[in-house]
Amino acid sequence: MPHSLVYHMVRQKKKKKLQLFDSQHFADMLSLLRENKLHFQRGQSWDASPGSALRFSQEHVLALRFTARAENMVSLCLALLSSLPLLWFLRGGHAMPDPARRDLLMREEMSRQTGGLLALTAAEQKLDARLRQLKEQEMSAARFLPAVHFFRAKPLIEKSSIFKLLQKMPKGAALHIHSSSLVDVEWLVKNVTYRPHCYVCFTWDNSVRFLFSDRQPFPRWDCFYWQLLETLRAKTGDCTEFDNGLIQHLTLFTEDPEGEYPNQDVVWEKFEKAFVAAAGLVTHAPVLRDYYYQGLEELHKDNIMYLEVRSGLSKTYELDGTVHDKSWTLSLFQEVTEKFRKDHPDFLGAQIIISVHRALSVSEVRAAVKEAIQLKRDFPDVVAGFDLVGRENVGRSLWDFREALSLPAELGASLPYFFHAGETDDEGTDVDQNILDALLFNTSRIGHGYALPHHPLAKELSRNRNIAVELCPISNQVLMLISDLRNHPAAVLMSEGHPMVVSSDDPSLFGTSGLSYDFYEAFVGIGGLKANLGTLKELAVNSIRYSSLPAHLQNAGLHMWQNKWDTFISDNS
Amino acid sequence: MPHSLVYHMVRQKKKKKLQLFDSQHFADMLSLLRENKLHFQRGQSWDASPGSALRFSQEHVLALRFTARAENMVSLCLALLSSLPLLWFLRGGHAMPDPARRDLLMREEMSRQTGGLLALTAAEQKLDARLRQLKEQEMSAARFLPAVHFFRAKPLIEKSSIFKLLQKMPKGAALHIHSSSLVDVEWLVKNVTYRPHCYVCFTWDNSVRFLFSDRQPFPRWDCFYWQLLETLRAKTGDCTEFDNGLIQHLTLFTEDPEGEYPNQDVVWEKFEKAFVAAAGLVTHAPVLRDYYYQGLEELHKDNIMYLEVRSGLSKTYELDGTVHDKSWTLSLFQEVTEKFRKDHPDFLGAQIIISVHRALSVSEVRAAVKEAIQLKRDFPDVVAGFDLVGRENVGRSLWDFREALSLPAELGASLPYFFHAGETDDEGTDVDQNILDALLFNTSRIGHGYALPHHPLAKELSRNRNIAVELCPISNQVLMLISDLRNHPAAVLMSEGHPMVVSSDDPSLFGTSGLSYDFYEAFVGIGGLKANLGTLKELAVNSIRYSSLPAHLQNAGLHMWQNKWDTFISDNS
Repeated sequence: MPHSLVYHMVRQKKKKKLQLFDSQHFADMLSLLRENKLHFQRGQSWDASPGSALRFSQEHVLALRFTARAENMVSLCLALLSSLPLLWFLRGGHAMPDPARRDLLMREEMSRQTGGLLALTAAEQKLDARLRQLKEQEMSAARFLPAVHFFRAKPLIEKSSIFKLLQKMPKGAALHIHSSSLVDVEWLVKNVTYRPHCYVCFTWDNSVRFLFSDRQPFPRWDCFYWQLLETLRAKTGDCTEFDNGLIQHLTLFTEDPEGEYPNQDVVWEKFEKAFVAAAGLVTHAPVLRDYYYQGLEELHKDNIMYLEVRSGLSKTYELDGTVHDKSWTLSLFQEVTEKFRKDHPDFLGAQIIISVHRALSVSEVRAAVKEAIQLKRDFPDVVAGFDLVGRENVGRSLWDFREALSLPAELGASLPYFFHAGETDDEGTDVDQNILDALLFNTSRIGHGYALPHHPLAKELSRNRNIAVELCPISNQVLMLISDLRNHPAAVLMSEGHPMVVSSDDPSLFGTSGLSYDFYEAFVGIGGLKANLGTLKELAVNSIRYSSLPAHLQNAGLHMWQNKWDTFISDNS
Repeated sequence: MPHSLVYHMVRQKKKKKLQLFDSQHFADMLSLLRENKLHFQRGQSWDASPGSALRFSQEHVLALRFTARAENMVSLCLALLSSLPLLWFLRGGHAMPDPARRDLLMREEMSRQTGGLLALTAAEQKLDARLRQLKEQEMSAARFLPAVHFFRAKPLIEKSSIFKLLQKMPKGAALHIHSSSLVDVEWLVKNVTYRPHCYVCFTWDNSVRFLFSDRQPFPRWDCFYWQLLETLRAKTGDCTEFDNGLIQHLTLFTEDPEGEYPNQDVVWEKFEKAFVAAAGLVTHAPVLRDYYYQGLEELHKDNIMYLEVRSGLSKTYELDGTVHDKSWTLSLFQEVTEKFRKDHPDFLGAQIIISVHRALSVSEVRAAVKEAIQLKRDFPDVVAGFDLVGRENVGRSLWDFREALSLPAELGASLPYFFHAGETDDEGTDVDQNILDALLFNTSRIGHGYALPHHPLAKELSRNRNIAVELCPISNQVLMLISDLRNHPAAVLMSEGHPMVVSSDDPSLFGTSGLSYDFYEAFVGIGGLKANLGTLKELAVNSIRYSSLPAHLQNAGLHMWQNKWDTFISDNS
């Protein structure tokens, strides 16, 4: 249907615009259009005559598909009009470019970006104009916030009118969050550490451990002296200061990020420490239940309707020391999700991506893959798939784990992969090959893909196979891959409309909540003035389309999202 | 010839590798190869079956052409072998990827980067291996130098073995340098300001002006009190300190760049001030002669054989106040170049790109274009073309000057353009459209093109039309577009083999000399471990191929360069 429409429209256009083209170009174009019929039917990209820039690429087709499903009008006409003059343009010549044709070229380029082919309604256009105006104001301010470290920019972002709009916007799904940093640290400290039977221990390397126990815990290799938190807190005069001290152990936040974290090694060390510190709180079975519910609550409050959370499914423990296995944790997860969905009918649900640390040995990862296959069988609606986590630069590469990762194929089992890949600036190293290997192992999405634009072949493969990048801008800034987010490589991907979703990675560690902060950075910093309401809309739709939800739930979810979106638009335009 | 070779080799291959492809893919491939024959003959890119990644693109064809001209072996075999398995790969499946095929994919990706299709000789491979080893060492050092501000990194770079090799390497041509910052500031102060009749004046805005005069100069609006430098220097106790004070006015160097330049506005203000300060020295006719000779000397010392310098051709003056016009300056330039060539037979020559400031009015620029057309007629071998300079973000855009820029076409005259475009991080603004407009006005090269990777359509146009980007990494870092050069957008261009040359923009202001510092940043920082000796070789060859030299001089130049290259290789492998 789309291809014939295009074909027909070009034929119509031909009569009117014949004078624009010299005969050779026109003959080329016609023969290409004939070829195109076939190609376009097959739902793939096709190229125009060699050297010309006429192109209906995969991105257009995808965008068309998305839009149709989202029941929006698609601007086929725009795509066509904006491509035709390229042929004319390529004739060369030094005369002044026709302003109308220049405008069409600019629109053609705009149409390629994320959301560039979405036709906005009148109400959407109104809001879009307002957003553009707000963005222009922010770009001309003394300090452009996406160029400032998030820890300094956060209070200013919270005052931004764009940010406030993004908070209200239905953002779809959060597809890249780690379970240990799902919930605001404030809640962990002010709620969880105030519960009875909570012990604390300060380690020799300036970290902290927590443990719930009905008796005095035994000393451990890293912790000799456990104190009951209740008693300790009572002893200190200033509870607020004491609690702030605890918070500092559980987050990366500091007022002097450049001073405190001189390089990636230091910031990653603190990062991994904070994970370990939180573990004793979060893996206590009764806490986990509340923690997880609270996590969904925070996302829901930020207008997010679905979650895929990466979790190692660490063993959970009871007060008497009883330990539960992964199946128990998955059941708990399933149960809490169900309860949350009942309490919030506009929430779609959640799934888990089972993750293991890439510092493990090959045989350990092999065992983990085997276990994940079984868990995916036992909890088909809960387990989305498998991933390897931890800093890529120091851990093993995907290729090191090739034996383990081919186990599902060996066993004829199904285990979708959601690999972190290319979260690195070590260009050209073995680690940098993770992106290609993630694709070779048929990853369903790419976690971060920070290095993807430096890999033209991998980029083509992921585009052709419709593999979305999970963009987490604040994470990349805090973990020191980039300082000024205008230079984030995802700006390239966004300008090309590469499959992409926005997520928050480790909200509690970075001091964010939900996705609005990361949407702000992606929309204002990475997208620049080019990114518009269509970009936001496509990013939200993407998050549902690239989720692990089965097709019928995706469609139901999109329908629900569209209603929320319509309300958002009518409330704000 | 190349196309038939490829065709033949694929036919050969077919017999051996038949089992690798399923019938559909193989049929697709064969039909594509048939089509290819036509396309390839026309010297253009062609695409493989929709969705497959088999591709012999413009970059390959270009690379082939370059290599053939540089009389090197071309690895057609590699290009082919590395493309074939993509078809296989796209069958999908979860089994472990064949390590040999993975290796071919990696080689295919490598072949796309700048220089990726050059076949290295045994001696070159030896040096390449050494370079890789050195780069691995630098990447694992405590501080990775391209991530450090150049003002701090410079002394460390000078100790780098890679840098020392780059100094010795014949680098071809410098195509993007501004005349006012062509020569080391040290020479300006230690030589020029020590000449008789040199007056100095300190301005209210903490800058400095110089003037050579046979009498006490009159007060000017910006300068009330002129002092004879000789007298003033004699009065100060410490000449070194005094001279260092002068140097500070003529360069951006500071030990605390982040503190002194909190944002782009501040650094650009100092930048423009330094230009104005140097003007009084450089535009004195006898100084200009020596200055320009000294500039060529510095380039030649850094193994550069040709220069295209951007110059406003400011009026030059004699001691008695006599003023010379632009023709006089061009004659001087021609004369000095000739003398330098006689003194240095391995130097090819130099041309001027006439530049005017983009802060001028449209009518002023129109007059400048008209004048440039005439000067290009009068000095066809000296004037390469025309450009607009100054900070893009605050000056007028190319589109604002459209009337002026279409004057050559109106008059039927020839005036090649070499536009600065996209030296900005203001994505999506009017300024950001300069890149597209530069292409619409048929620019011969793009100065900086920092924003190009964010403009997919403009990027395609510049690639298809073989328009090289003039990459000036240190300039972009010092002028605060980027801090960590690993994130420089040119990394994307380099990975795709986009037409590119390396230059130094304003060597004296940044404290560099020649091109070796910028080559270091481009090779180690932007290229990462992927960039190899082939990258360096192609960058050097590019600088001659994308110059304004006529074809026969380019060929002669390349021949001369090749001899120097061979010596460099045999001396260092």
